[in-house]
Amino acid sequence: MTGRSPLTPVVVRTATEGDADGVLGIARELVADGTTYVFAPETLDPRARRFVAAVEGEVAGCYLLRPNQAGRGGHVANASYAVAQRFAGRGVGRAMGEHSLEEARRLGFKAMQFNFVVSTNGAAVALWKTLGFRIVGELPRTFRHPTLGLVDAYVMHRFL
Amino acid sequence: MTGRSPLTPVVVRTATEGDADGVLGIARELVADGTTYVFAPETLDPRARRFVAAVEGEVAGCYLLRPNQAGRGGHVANASYAVAQRFAGRGVGRAMGEHSLEEARRLGFKAMQFNFVVSTNGAAVALWKTLGFRIVGELPRTFRHPTLGLVDAYVMHRFL
Repeated sequence: MTGRSPLTPVVVRTATEGDADGVLGIARELVADGTTYVFAPETLDPRARRFVAAVEGEVAGCYLLRPNQAGRGGHVANASYAVAQRFAGRGVGRAMGEHSLEEARRLGFKAMQFNFVVSTNGAAVALWKTLGFRIVGELPRTFRHPTLGLVDAYVMHRFL
Repeated sequence: MTGRSPLTPVVVRTATEGDADGVLGIARELVADGTTYVFAPETLDPRARRFVAAVEGEVAGCYLLRPNQAGRGGHVANASYAVAQRFAGRGVGRAMGEHSLEEARRLGFKAMQFNFVVSTNGAAVALWKTLGFRIVGELPRTFRHPTLGLVDAYVMHRFL
């Protein structure tokens, strides 16, 4: 525990080159943890816009926002989020979620879709529901959880 | 009409450099038609294996097969198919579908998932159902159809 107040403001902003170490640290945690993410080619998508959540100047989270499909599917946005473990439970995910919905609207997207929310990641599923998403797909046994074995993932969606 | 018999055998095989013009011709038709496909980054995925369906030595269709996700989602395959307009209704899609399921099994995949089957593409939806797929997700108004406007797309899935 760091002793920071849970009310410490979270500033979400466009990522800069100076954030690279912080973002890489979060990615390393996710790989080591292994319970929530697949690393999809989307992380290399040149169309992705990159943002970070900063708490007291530290990179507490990051997300990327992009079209979920090209061309005739390009009006639907997709985003992927990650929170540093030491900032869990501090509202960083919610701040990034709200920021990304605003940003997607601003860019003219008509909806946001998450393609692969691991069903056992209850905090994420609950957060997205409070932000207006609903489950529109259930992908059976599609994520190999490191301790639970094959578990389902959800497709989640909301209009903007 | 070409006068070929509907029973002309379809040979599905690995794509070679000599197929490039035939494949490009099919891609151009799809772009011009615009009713069935989004062109996703998957078409550039270096992990994709490429196949063609040949009828009497002509490229009548093509498909690519790849992991749908990386890492902990890598046991689920994904495939994208296209049939040349002049070979429509000749069983080319079905031959490629069956071939891709065999190939995916051979490669050790445990399931096949299609992420974006346009709901108004009735021939495709019906074909995948006869090949054992079911709809596991309904993505609302996610495809901008050139004449019908915004229509749904399906996520379809089957175990192997």
